[in-house]
Amino acid sequence: MRNIKMKIQYEGTRYNGWQRQGNTENTIQGKLEKLLSKMTEEVIELAGSGRTDAGVHAKGQIVNFHTKTKMSVKEMENYIQQYLPKDIAIIEITEAAPKFHSRLNAVRKMYEYQIYTGKENPVFERNYVWHLGQKLDLDAMRKAAAYFVGEHDFRSFCGNKKMKKSCVRRIEQISIEESISKVTIQYIGNGFLMNMVRILTGTLVEVGMGLRKAESMIEILEAKNREMAGKTAPSTGLCLMEVWY
Amino acid sequence: MRNIKMKIQYEGTRYNGWQRQGNTENTIQGKLEKLLSKMTEEVIELAGSGRTDAGVHAKGQIVNFHTKTKMSVKEMENYIQQYLPKDIAIIEITEAAPKFHSRLNAVRKMYEYQIYTGKENPVFERNYVWHLGQKLDLDAMRKAAAYFVGEHDFRSFCGNKKMKKSCVRRIEQISIEESISKVTIQYIGNGFLMNMVRILTGTLVEVGMGLRKAESMIEILEAKNREMAGKTAPSTGLCLMEVWY
Repeated sequence: MRNIKMKIQYEGTRYNGWQRQGNTENTIQGKLEKLLSKMTEEVIELAGSGRTDAGVHAKGQIVNFHTKTKMSVKEMENYIQQYLPKDIAIIEITEAAPKFHSRLNAVRKMYEYQIYTGKENPVFERNYVWHLGQKLDLDAMRKAAAYFVGEHDFRSFCGNKKMKKSCVRRIEQISIEESISKVTIQYIGNGFLMNMVRILTGTLVEVGMGLRKAESMIEILEAKNREMAGKTAPSTGLCLMEVWY
Repeated sequence: MRNIKMKIQYEGTRYNGWQRQGNTENTIQGKLEKLLSKMTEEVIELAGSGRTDAGVHAKGQIVNFHTKTKMSVKEMENYIQQYLPKDIAIIEITEAAPKFHSRLNAVRKMYEYQIYTGKENPVFERNYVWHLGQKLDLDAMRKAAAYFVGEHDFRSFCGNKKMKKSCVRRIEQISIEESISKVTIQYIGNGFLMNMVRILTGTLVEVGMGLRKAESMIEILEAKNREMAGKTAPSTGLCLMEVWY
């Protein structure tokens, strides 16, 4: 069996997230599996590096699938490009080692969260930002973010309250940058729990609005209780940027 | 009567262009006039610096309207921002001189046309570009564009074949720049005919694809015949950037 690896992009706006869910077809995974199955005349199961929620975007999602097709990767690329909906793109397609698995072998991921701080509607970016409409105290946010860097139990920032496995993850870097009317928070880590980036962002924004102190991040982490952290930031602002192996 | 000037932005994708058309309400002008009439409890007529076609965007459209309202411009701004659809934004609102007219007083305009040359779907820009999917010869395009700079009769580039008025316009500058997978053509001139930027772009792209010679622009201009020029480029790639007074 060949193992085909692809780098894909998508705008999550009109999808119910990455993961195929029973008969509801409107997922990225569902759309792609259907297309690949038609192309190869096999039943294709597509593995993704991680599940993105409904409305979340990806610029560097990595996926892989096994196939017996005789098509060259170039032929596959042309076929896929022809039939993909316009809000999904295939950026790279390569032959991978037989054992490569896009999720299990991932060692590091980068997510970006974009916040629009201007009052006016972000016309051209409205599906890619959280339209907050107010300025943020970036220094306070950076101070708070520093408490998350390193290896911590992030149970307080996990959207799955019944999570039975370990919530220990390592965040390598959180950078917070500002351009005109926009704040971009970049997270790099070895793995992220369900809704983790959005809950971290919601909490950091509350710090930036002066509703929480940077130092209170210590208590939140220690509590291991979702109720202690801030609100889950909207899905629109989030984008999976890169996955490392 | 007060004269209120506004700078607005919009994504044209879901509208039938700028200009109100009888009962069809789905125009930018129609949407805004309805909102402003409700706000002022007057019948508001909104003048725009120029009509943008269906699907064309604006980052710096200038509009103005007359009103007797006692509201401050700040109050108006807040009211409008609250009720505007998310694909229209108000960027600036100021009190203008009584005789200021956004269309009649405009002396110069800048349009940008964006072409996506990559094969893959331009996921995040799909509504803002022409997805051409092939590389262009920019040197040839720049050579061709040079023939348009200056004062010329642009009848060959006018979408209105029954145009009775003068088609003489002055183009001050056409710049063609390339970034990764994207070519941006910027036009600055004292006025543009119906579809003129899109027909100029369609013609330049045919030069960039090797289908026409740069020198043939001379004949096209001289012919004063729409049939001689290239295809009208899709509306999606076009954006009104700035208007000078």
